[in-house]
Amino acid sequence: MARSLGRIFSGFQRLGCLSPMKAHLSQPSATSVAVRSTLVRSMVLALPSPFSSKPRDFSLPNSSWGSEMKRLYEHYNSQCEVETEGGEKQEGPWRRLPSYNRLLKYATGGVYLSKIIQSKARLFTRNIRDAGAAFEYVLFVNSEEKKCVCIFQAGHLLEGPPGHVHGGAIATMIDTVTGTHATILSGPVMTANLNISYRSPIPLGSTVLLESTLDKKEGRKTFIICKVTSTDGSKVHTETTALFVSINIGHLLLGG
Amino acid sequence: MARSLGRIFSGFQRLGCLSPMKAHLSQPSATSVAVRSTLVRSMVLALPSPFSSKPRDFSLPNSSWGSEMKRLYEHYNSQCEVETEGGEKQEGPWRRLPSYNRLLKYATGGVYLSKIIQSKARLFTRNIRDAGAAFEYVLFVNSEEKKCVCIFQAGHLLEGPPGHVHGGAIATMIDTVTGTHATILSGPVMTANLNISYRSPIPLGSTVLLESTLDKKEGRKTFIICKVTSTDGSKVHTETTALFVSINIGHLLLGG
Repeated sequence: MARSLGRIFSGFQRLGCLSPMKAHLSQPSATSVAVRSTLVRSMVLALPSPFSSKPRDFSLPNSSWGSEMKRLYEHYNSQCEVETEGGEKQEGPWRRLPSYNRLLKYATGGVYLSKIIQSKARLFTRNIRDAGAAFEYVLFVNSEEKKCVCIFQAGHLLEGPPGHVHGGAIATMIDTVTGTHATILSGPVMTANLNISYRSPIPLGSTVLLESTLDKKEGRKTFIICKVTSTDGSKVHTETTALFVSINIGHLLLGG
Repeated sequence: MARSLGRIFSGFQRLGCLSPMKAHLSQPSATSVAVRSTLVRSMVLALPSPFSSKPRDFSLPNSSWGSEMKRLYEHYNSQCEVETEGGEKQEGPWRRLPSYNRLLKYATGGVYLSKIIQSKARLFTRNIRDAGAAFEYVLFVNSEEKKCVCIFQAGHLLEGPPGHVHGGAIATMIDTVTGTHATILSGPVMTANLNISYRSPIPLGSTVLLESTLDKKEGRKTFIICKVTSTDGSKVHTETTALFVSINIGHLLLGG
């Protein structure tokens, strides 16, 4: 069971996707865990097992990426593997996180969730396959510095006010980046609070940087700070404090 | 100029779309207003003028709506027009807001925004035409009670945690509803702050209610409170305080 959940969690991490919180998740009893373990196992087998069918990794460069997006990708990607003085290659300070458009094929979601919806479910930020149309982004994590950066190019389907990115689309990227970061730091979590101050609008089509840093950890709580800026850091678009609470992921998966 | 901006604002209201704030928008000088007025006028003429080409109104029922979505739509829609004792029809306490997927065809957005992006730009919440796949929602406003409700059915493309709606998709609906409400109350605004507490996750495929109420107005600031609940009100999904700041919309449109 623990191993199964570990694999699901690993899937979570790879998918770089998180979200809203279930406030008071109680631990399932030993009995319920035993009863439910078969179901969990079958769900895990139904995973696009990280990932036998070789799903598309949306975090890799594509033809829609502008020069700023490419430049920053190269900047961080070149620090994922570094060369020693002896000419050997070794892990660098940064790690790129792959990103897919599916979570679990057969996750349960209570009475509302039909099988049709389950099989068609797609990760919100990766639900449009047309390159460059919506969320183009890639996350890099620096474990040493407890830091996460995201390079985000906002496509034409994310419009809010004329010619600018919708506040909800910005919130979506903030939730995605801080949630992924909190998961890396603390294991499975759900968003408990997002407090977002919008300082200046983001023009549609532009590339921005999201920088997520750990503020503190207190028991089940992980506090994250996130800033969205222009790529040269000179313009602040939003400032956010985010709170995540650790959960028992089996509880969520089983709709308990 | 004022009339032109009035028409744009009217378009905003009809589109029911808002977003992130430009914090310190200065008033353009009389000279710059004069210089720019021609541009604004041509932009206004380029509007899908509310709306000659009869664009699709996304707030009307479609075959993807579940029974709960339909029931609540009927509940509020039936109160948009009421019958007097004499059998005459008159405006009721509620008004349905239509919803389209475009704002301005030729809005400017600074150096980043190419003409290709401008012509393809679509409102974030209405960027997927496949009925039922993403955001199905309709807003009703009650001017007397300074209240706004939104019935929201969350499609399979909005997934965050397995089987549940992405926190960013929920934030998107909150920004849309509170922003629309603030615009109705105060004229053109931008989102300055969203403070969202996530209490319980929303199962993918389910229908929820967003209720937006005016907290207070202070100068250029409009404070809104928004709650997302199950349709019977028994379960609270999120609680939000939102702050909007009145803007000079010409400033945003002209990328000043």
